[in-house]
Amino acid sequence: MVHVKETSGGLQWRLRASNGSSSELLVPESGPIRRTWLGLLGLVVGLTSKVGKFFKKAWDVGVQDPKKVIHCFKVGMALTIVSLFYYMRPLYEGVGGNAMWAVMTVVVVFEYTVGATLSKCLNRATATIVAGSLAMGVHWIASQSGDRFEPVILGASVFLLASVATFSRFIPTIKARFDYGAMIFILTFSLVSVSGYRVEKLLQLAHQRVSTIAVGTSMCMLISMLVCPIWAGEELHLLITRNMEKLANSLDGCVAEYFGEMNNDDIDSDKVDKEDKTQKSLLGYKCVLNSKGTEDVFANLARWEPAHGRFNFSHPWKQYLKIGAAMRNCACCIEALNGCINSEVQAPEFIKKRLSNVCIMLSSFCSTVFKELAITTTTMTRSFEVEFSVGEMKDGVQELQNTLKSLPTLLTIPPSPSPSPSPSPLPEAPKEEKKEPIATPTVVPLMEVVPLVTVASLLIDIVARIEGVVEAVNELADMADFKSEDEKPKQPSSDYRDQQTMNALQQV
Amino acid sequence: MVHVKETSGGLQWRLRASNGSSSELLVPESGPIRRTWLGLLGLVVGLTSKVGKFFKKAWDVGVQDPKKVIHCFKVGMALTIVSLFYYMRPLYEGVGGNAMWAVMTVVVVFEYTVGATLSKCLNRATATIVAGSLAMGVHWIASQSGDRFEPVILGASVFLLASVATFSRFIPTIKARFDYGAMIFILTFSLVSVSGYRVEKLLQLAHQRVSTIAVGTSMCMLISMLVCPIWAGEELHLLITRNMEKLANSLDGCVAEYFGEMNNDDIDSDKVDKEDKTQKSLLGYKCVLNSKGTEDVFANLARWEPAHGRFNFSHPWKQYLKIGAAMRNCACCIEALNGCINSEVQAPEFIKKRLSNVCIMLSSFCSTVFKELAITTTTMTRSFEVEFSVGEMKDGVQELQNTLKSLPTLLTIPPSPSPSPSPSPLPEAPKEEKKEPIATPTVVPLMEVVPLVTVASLLIDIVARIEGVVEAVNELADMADFKSEDEKPKQPSSDYRDQQTMNALQQV
Repeated sequence: MVHVKETSGGLQWRLRASNGSSSELLVPESGPIRRTWLGLLGLVVGLTSKVGKFFKKAWDVGVQDPKKVIHCFKVGMALTIVSLFYYMRPLYEGVGGNAMWAVMTVVVVFEYTVGATLSKCLNRATATIVAGSLAMGVHWIASQSGDRFEPVILGASVFLLASVATFSRFIPTIKARFDYGAMIFILTFSLVSVSGYRVEKLLQLAHQRVSTIAVGTSMCMLISMLVCPIWAGEELHLLITRNMEKLANSLDGCVAEYFGEMNNDDIDSDKVDKEDKTQKSLLGYKCVLNSKGTEDVFANLARWEPAHGRFNFSHPWKQYLKIGAAMRNCACCIEALNGCINSEVQAPEFIKKRLSNVCIMLSSFCSTVFKELAITTTTMTRSFEVEFSVGEMKDGVQELQNTLKSLPTLLTIPPSPSPSPSPSPLPEAPKEEKKEPIATPTVVPLMEVVPLVTVASLLIDIVARIEGVVEAVNELADMADFKSEDEKPKQPSSDYRDQQTMNALQQV
Repeated sequence: MVHVKETSGGLQWRLRASNGSSSELLVPESGPIRRTWLGLLGLVVGLTSKVGKFFKKAWDVGVQDPKKVIHCFKVGMALTIVSLFYYMRPLYEGVGGNAMWAVMTVVVVFEYTVGATLSKCLNRATATIVAGSLAMGVHWIASQSGDRFEPVILGASVFLLASVATFSRFIPTIKARFDYGAMIFILTFSLVSVSGYRVEKLLQLAHQRVSTIAVGTSMCMLISMLVCPIWAGEELHLLITRNMEKLANSLDGCVAEYFGEMNNDDIDSDKVDKEDKTQKSLLGYKCVLNSKGTEDVFANLARWEPAHGRFNFSHPWKQYLKIGAAMRNCACCIEALNGCINSEVQAPEFIKKRLSNVCIMLSSFCSTVFKELAITTTTMTRSFEVEFSVGEMKDGVQELQNTLKSLPTLLTIPPSPSPSPSPSPLPEAPKEEKKEPIATPTVVPLMEVVPLVTVASLLIDIVARIEGVVEAVNELADMADFKSEDEKPKQPSSDYRDQQTMNALQQV
């Protein structure tokens, strides 16, 4: 019992042991050893669970996006093929042992998307050639100017060009497209200009190096474009349409949650799981808010890609950024809407019910517009249904405004806070007539309807912002020459439309 | 006159010439030449203006952030110093002509911030050593297994390790910290394992290469840390505090614009310039919305940096991300607020005036909290004034809520839309008494106050979100052991405080 107090680390172990065979086993000498052992055990268990978690995470990455796994095998393949250089003696000797540069090129240049790979390949090739020629010129001039000035000229040119090229990497237009090229320019220029070789030797070296780099880059380009290509443009296209759907779901979810529609849904089925899912889809707008960086990167890379699938070489990728910005505008409003849902003050049920139908209808119109836009963008087909849905959405706003206007709710303001003047300006007879309807109202303080009014107002604001998205998508349709509707098969979204028509009819 | 029609390109030129000496100069033969010349001239002018614009942009980048220019000179310096390797024969021969690797290391590793440079240096060094040893082991095993199996073992190992390492770059935790290391691992492993050299030769090569890389990395680290260092942590710190100020200005600007305070300001002075500036500061919240990417990058890099200035090695950089997220939450609400400002429906002036003071006061309390938070973060000093301002802000919310409640405005709802029941439930006598104040009100439809109510509601929501920011900053203060107030000199913000106290007193 004394030992139990002594070390808290080994407590459980000892007590369990004393329940067992005999308490004599608990000799004080085994304490530190046991403790060490337990500590080690804890360390191993902790490490194992950490490693397990890491592999779980890695597995999830692979399962969520099998394209990434394919990319890994592509890199492995490219490297293995390029390594063959080392085994085919004729090839290896043909480039004078410079096969290293082919391997290096593959490792450095092979990227996830075709656009990124192409951009790096072209940057690398161009920068190598330009910098190489420039450096040889400088090298020649330096070698002509005598031993004394040679290092000065070379050093000064390296300093100057490296500084200028580094600075150019800060200029946004260059950074977006030629960042890697600028780096390779500095690298090649420095290596060639300061190397101790004579110009003839340099030319031979340059020839070998350029040919190995050409082998590396062309293989990267071929593999990335031919074996399960992952196009940056396609990814951008997908991202934007997925974000549209996310906004549609978030908006529907937010408004439904505020007006308490969610809870009336089938309760008996696996509810927790469903609620979890709902919560997730409700927060989809957060993804939209955070996707600016990814969109920018994809749009930059997509410009390097040749025509593929339904996309031309000059597909207006920049327009996707405008659509993305318009969607983030909406997402901001949904975020504010979400704040209202969690507000402590809630309007009385009977007023909420008055607005409930028209708000839910409006939000469903809005989400339909998003879904129609997603279909238009995905299928690259102009659709009259978008215009129809936008019309419906505008009517919905009108209806909400009418409901707000005609809501028998009125704000009444007594004449002034100062001692009230005599009611003489009003004639007697009509006063008697009007008193009847005013005298019997239920009085609701403005304060209680604040969140409700805010929800309505934000919905109206969201509609205005959605029109911005529609405009941006229409511009895209003009720029990218979307097909017209005739060729389009019947879309699965028609049930939404039917439902809305029903709703609209019910309202009329 | 015939020729004028013929070519529209040279029109202006010819007419000007015909005004001058003689019209005989306009011989038809000179048409195409002139056109070519004019075309060339246009091209040159266009190009010049484009180049001019480019240089203007570059100049702006340099002027806005002179640190970038300094960085460029640092890169130039590092490269020039490392080039000395080539001129000092003993050094050059000591590394067996592998001086190239030192230059390459400098070019590839030297980054804008100290954190980025350190992260790349450590990644490069570790990955080179680990991959090199592993590759030599594989190389030895392959060489022992006979000519037949050697290429198979080598190829398989390259394929496997390259795939796994590439996949690891997709796992977020690895991507954030060891992305470059994974690339260098693949590079070194492939180069070493497939190289045709024997193990003894490889050891010699490895020794030379590691020593040149060591020279390159250590020089990069020294120059980036000792010559005008640019710390990622400091940049993150600055970014966050600057964003706080931006939010303060945006919020103030939005509310002031809505309640029309801006226009009453001194009109006679250079108004356009001022309005332009106001518009810019009003839109500062957009920067906050878009700064997530930058914050993430800086926070990742700052973890690599040693203690510098007021920051320890274990400074809680991750907490800055939480502060940033809380601020973006606020910025979203300000964006929604901005939507209300541009709303078409505007509340009647007399109601707006009722809320104007209390709203402007609340927004000024909010912006004071932001400014105090910025001061706390900048000086890394706990300040009672933050708590005081938060208290004031909460009182402001209470006051706004009271104003909304006590606003003589009430919502009145007639009993029901169906034919109204008889007013019998109400006794006669009190009805007579109560009719007087109800009978004389000015009636304002709810619709007209919707934007005003929304502004008030969003302001209340913003306050709740600001409390989130305050909480995050307090957590930072706990984690980073901010100094207590006693040691702090008097802050320039006291004038804000005085002004608010004045405002508060006026309200009482």
